[in-house]
Amino acid sequence: MQSIYQSAERVIAGQDTAFIGSVNEDGYPTIKAMLPPRLREGLKFFYFSTNTSSTRAAHFIKNEKACVYFADRQLFRGVMLLGKMEVLQDMHHKQLLWQDGDTLYYPLGATDPDYCALRFTALSGRYYQDFKSVNFSIEGGA
Amino acid sequence: MQSIYQSAERVIAGQDTAFIGSVNEDGYPTIKAMLPPRLREGLKFFYFSTNTSSTRAAHFIKNEKACVYFADRQLFRGVMLLGKMEVLQDMHHKQLLWQDGDTLYYPLGATDPDYCALRFTALSGRYYQDFKSVNFSIEGGA
Repeated sequence: MQSIYQSAERVIAGQDTAFIGSVNEDGYPTIKAMLPPRLREGLKFFYFSTNTSSTRAAHFIKNEKACVYFADRQLFRGVMLLGKMEVLQDMHHKQLLWQDGDTLYYPLGATDPDYCALRFTALSGRYYQDFKSVNFSIEGGA
Repeated sequence: MQSIYQSAERVIAGQDTAFIGSVNEDGYPTIKAMLPPRLREGLKFFYFSTNTSSTRAAHFIKNEKACVYFADRQLFRGVMLLGKMEVLQDMHHKQLLWQDGDTLYYPLGATDPDYCALRFTALSGRYYQDFKSVNFSIEGGA
């Protein structure tokens, strides 16, 4: 039988969309659909790429509190991770996430100042299934 | 040509999932997938039903700041509404939203104390399309 951690990882791996939550300057929660993480280390670290000039990056620079949510709507399952989001502009991380097609949006390549990496570090997890939910440890590997 | 308001309404009407954002007691944003609103008045008022005992209801009783997000992932379009969420436990609103099949979850019917209505009042809107976004007035009806 799968552990909650394994079930959560399976939901995450199967989704083509990640929903990112931030808190804006007026204290309102915000949600944005994004492409799945470009890189993931277990359920602890998630890396996304975005525009340095984006509203979301501005939120996280001021307030790092974040959530990442994945939903499997066919199976009525979901995973929510709470944690912190860092906006990384160093070349190591920018190059780590860079993909060839990105030149379409960032003509200057990985050095483009409007291209940056987001690193989400999960602190806690909650798993939803069949209208019930349970907390799980994001350290508690497979 | 459709106005932004009309485009936003079209995205909302076409989705079978609404993503609800709240801020928890520690200041973290949270996201939850829910069934679409049971009742909607333009882009101003959205009514959902939920459990009075739910985590989300508890968040909104303490902090009414909320967002509701709809995503059309096929067309890369999305709508985010910021506003306030009220937890309504009066019989008028509970009966207004009640549907026959709800007895499965609330055996006591619309009077079940664990059954409540959520009313979201939108204050501002943002429309996303093709990696661009624009604010729109939620009063600016069609």
